[in-house]
Amino acid sequence: MKRYEIKYLLKEDVSSLIGTDVCVKGWVRTKRGNKNVAFIALNDGSIIHNIQVVADPSRFEETLKRVTTGACLCVEGKLVESQGSGQAVEVQAENIIVYGEADPESYPLQKKGHSMEFLREIGHLRLRTNTFGAVMRLRHNMAMAIHTFFHERGFFYFHTPLFSASDCEGAGEMVHVSTLDPENPPRGNDGKIDWEQDFFGKFTALTVSGQLEGELGATSLGKIYTFGPTFRAENSNTPRHLAEFWMIEPEMAFYQLDELTALEEEFIKYCVRWALDHCMDDLEFLNKMIDNGLIERLRSVIDTDFVRLPYTEGIKILEDAVAKGHKFEFPVSWGVDLASEHERYLVEQHFKKPVIMIDYPKEIKAFYMKQNDDCRTVQGTDVLFPQIGEIIGGSVREESYDKLVARMDELGMDRSGMEWYLDTRRFGSCPHAGFGLGFERLMLFVTGMANIRDVIPFPRTPKTAEF
Amino acid sequence: MKRYEIKYLLKEDVSSLIGTDVCVKGWVRTKRGNKNVAFIALNDGSIIHNIQVVADPSRFEETLKRVTTGACLCVEGKLVESQGSGQAVEVQAENIIVYGEADPESYPLQKKGHSMEFLREIGHLRLRTNTFGAVMRLRHNMAMAIHTFFHERGFFYFHTPLFSASDCEGAGEMVHVSTLDPENPPRGNDGKIDWEQDFFGKFTALTVSGQLEGELGATSLGKIYTFGPTFRAENSNTPRHLAEFWMIEPEMAFYQLDELTALEEEFIKYCVRWALDHCMDDLEFLNKMIDNGLIERLRSVIDTDFVRLPYTEGIKILEDAVAKGHKFEFPVSWGVDLASEHERYLVEQHFKKPVIMIDYPKEIKAFYMKQNDDCRTVQGTDVLFPQIGEIIGGSVREESYDKLVARMDELGMDRSGMEWYLDTRRFGSCPHAGFGLGFERLMLFVTGMANIRDVIPFPRTPKTAEF
Repeated sequence: MKRYEIKYLLKEDVSSLIGTDVCVKGWVRTKRGNKNVAFIALNDGSIIHNIQVVADPSRFEETLKRVTTGACLCVEGKLVESQGSGQAVEVQAENIIVYGEADPESYPLQKKGHSMEFLREIGHLRLRTNTFGAVMRLRHNMAMAIHTFFHERGFFYFHTPLFSASDCEGAGEMVHVSTLDPENPPRGNDGKIDWEQDFFGKFTALTVSGQLEGELGATSLGKIYTFGPTFRAENSNTPRHLAEFWMIEPEMAFYQLDELTALEEEFIKYCVRWALDHCMDDLEFLNKMIDNGLIERLRSVIDTDFVRLPYTEGIKILEDAVAKGHKFEFPVSWGVDLASEHERYLVEQHFKKPVIMIDYPKEIKAFYMKQNDDCRTVQGTDVLFPQIGEIIGGSVREESYDKLVARMDELGMDRSGMEWYLDTRRFGSCPHAGFGLGFERLMLFVTGMANIRDVIPFPRTPKTAEF
Repeated sequence: MKRYEIKYLLKEDVSSLIGTDVCVKGWVRTKRGNKNVAFIALNDGSIIHNIQVVADPSRFEETLKRVTTGACLCVEGKLVESQGSGQAVEVQAENIIVYGEADPESYPLQKKGHSMEFLREIGHLRLRTNTFGAVMRLRHNMAMAIHTFFHERGFFYFHTPLFSASDCEGAGEMVHVSTLDPENPPRGNDGKIDWEQDFFGKFTALTVSGQLEGELGATSLGKIYTFGPTFRAENSNTPRHLAEFWMIEPEMAFYQLDELTALEEEFIKYCVRWALDHCMDDLEFLNKMIDNGLIERLRSVIDTDFVRLPYTEGIKILEDAVAKGHKFEFPVSWGVDLASEHERYLVEQHFKKPVIMIDYPKEIKAFYMKQNDDCRTVQGTDVLFPQIGEIIGGSVREESYDKLVARMDELGMDRSGMEWYLDTRRFGSCPHAGFGLGFERLMLFVTGMANIRDVIPFPRTPKTAEF
């Protein structure tokens, strides 16, 4: 007998199947009923909705005792139009096989309404809940949207390395890797660890960004994007930080500032539109259970032109607000790195729409950003969103070898390990630009979830690396 | 003036653009000509082919001195039908801007025909060659094929963790991660390193497979796949091993052996067909320059039904071959793990088509494979390909808690860190199956490249972690 996924039976036109025998498999969400009839809500993960299985208790008396929340079933029976509300079709059970029981005494997911904190403690099972099913289906869809967006526009997916011996300086946030015995590493005559004997022959860490290698891709293949895990051992237990997260970093040869910001806006709207077009069942659930403003907020983003706002103008707006009596916790003046409260004021109160801020003071941005002729700003771009703040950071890159090296020297950077990067400016240098998006930031926005630990299957944070 | 990517001008119908001014940007591959005319072959990475720029030396005398191999140009001029053979259109230069020079004295990529070894030494620049351009465009396309294949079939992309505190036993191949100062780690009273003070609060390593976590996904979402980096610090300098490689691991609830092998075959054919449908320019280049049998071999795979071959039958075939005088280096008898020579004999000489071998002796396969009723074989599957041998390894998983635990005990495995995994069998256990594909193995097959270091942008091998 043919097995159908529950999504197919609930979403496709199955009128030709009505009255025929079908097979469905899945996990029991609930069982209810009385001595005359039993209703089993079965879910197989393909969709947030359950299919209703109707069983005759007199016929399945012994089996139904084993049908408890979390048990896995194979049900064969007739597909019929549903008598009740809430679903179009249901299955009248003719045969029920219990693949796996779930002892109600020990199975942790008994009732609805577990707290997010509790569900994090049973992270291996929380995927079986409606909320995490919805989040994970959305996560897949956002990844698919990203790959499709770039593929359709002629970008190439480019795998930058995870192990990196480059720039091990910002050591506080870097995770060191080794295959040496940490208790007894080989040591040289100076008593220090002999890293030449380590697997990679030198002190090696995990990447914190693929951008610099991504520039190698863009300056040969034209347009590339990365999409891979990134590691930052920030010792901050906040709802917005993970030690292991996924990042998307497109890099485009020959793009200038206006093309960069246009791509950033087009990209984020494409992802949000994909969610609305492909994931409405899950969004409706999250809108109802997690964040009542979610769908409205998603719709507003795709219907709005993002503001382009030079940093200098942004500061004026904020200073005006202060002059008119608005209180910020942190002071505002030209040159400061904007705090979250400043960004949110601009986005949520002043413009009431997403803002792409451009032309930042060079002192608060990275060395590789293209220097403007004013000698004090660089062509950096931050895309600022309601609720979550910065969702994308990007820039035009400085393509002048001389200017780039001068800036690195000004910052006291060690150029010795960076010659490969400087070769992009030494040989056939080209104007180029790129941006980075933390995938989980996007996930927070499209799901309405409040904690970044709840939009990735297995969060890694200080003191946590379960499973 | 509108800039066009070179792929667009060479592959699309541009008849309406003939006679109009266009802008092209890219890197100089070659310059040739005489005192009356100069031909510049310009490449922008969008396609393997170059567009020909025709320039009048008397008009661009000074500029042309700076137009050398590797230089980056912006060219504006009239698009015309090409007089020469080899391309349909060319650009008559009216304006040439040199974005970046490439000093012929120091730019390493001067002539054609660099060895692969030399190109590995300048891994940051090899991406600018035709060969690596072709390989990287194919790499993108194979990734896109994989995501599209699974998306169309209702699988969800599932990110398994990279940091893992689980199963740190196979320590030889695992890469340890830490944020402690390796020279002076904090130590406990027993003199040993106090891992509780490390970032994750315990001894932590990088994952060598996402399968076990993937099973958590499949037993809640139904069908998932992973596609991410995997780390194995094997100290083997071979053309087939990388310390950092990308792996695809689908996992499907309710799949049985025949459904698993059908999916494996469908999957690999889909990828190969995608390459033939989307990448013929690059394949033709590789077929000409790297492997003359490439395209024929790809075509033969998609036109062939793969053989299903129980291990026991495979052994009989090999024993028959030995009896008839065929010499193998390694002995053959029931129970041995087949060597590459055995697999290649079956695939290339006996069947002359891909083989999916099934039902292996349990002693040579992993603990989680479903045990057959014969008590000596398990439902493992290896997909064996011409030239490269095993390309996919998969299995039906043992869903019985009792059988799984008995096998773990038999193997002396420590179950203490595995309770989360055993919960999949403890609560709502279901039949399920999955397989794993090393992405770079697939890349070797579809490119004809001989060394796995040449199908990933930045290979990580013992003593090598440049860039």
